[in-house]
Amino acid sequence: MIVMLTVITYDVNTETANGRKRLRKVAKCCVNYGQRVQNSVFECVADAATMARIKHDLIELIDQNADSLRFYYLGNSYENKIEHVGAKTSYDAEGFLSV
Amino acid sequence: MIVMLTVITYDVNTETANGRKRLRKVAKCCVNYGQRVQNSVFECVADAATMARIKHDLIELIDQNADSLRFYYLGNSYENKIEHVGAKTSYDAEGFLSV
Repeated sequence: MIVMLTVITYDVNTETANGRKRLRKVAKCCVNYGQRVQNSVFECVADAATMARIKHDLIELIDQNADSLRFYYLGNSYENKIEHVGAKTSYDAEGFLSV
Repeated sequence: MIVMLTVITYDVNTETANGRKRLRKVAKCCVNYGQRVQNSVFECVADAATMARIKHDLIELIDQNADSLRFYYLGNSYENKIEHVGAKTSYDAEGFLSV
């Protein structure tokens, strides 16, 4: 089974309670398959079928008129394609910031 | 000259005026080489030397103790690696939301 990395970025207005609630749901949906690396950036490692299911679930969660999702498919050889600079913040499974 | 796509994601607390100011500066730095596709996601198309300069400039702009940058290198054949779902929001060169 080939697993691939997909970077999922989510645009939502988190100044509203509803926006924050949707963001938490998106985080919960992604957390089994990867990690939250920034406030609205998730990295999922999954095979193609699982990734299709995650994508389907995410589309159900968001408000398509107000929010957007972008998917970046980095393939199965992704170690050298990612670089991080600055603060390392960890987010817990519920999507809350934990410092 | 080979140009590559780099996705730059920026984590900053935009609930503070300083955070919003840094985000605007990051947006301005990226805008000549690509576009802002979400509130804190930028896609830059540039050759390796230009990309190194953009990265250097961005690192100078951010507060490394509070903010983070992630760079995803998608290479020169990136058309099929990106998917968008939901609202299409455009951001102007100053980094302000324009609807």
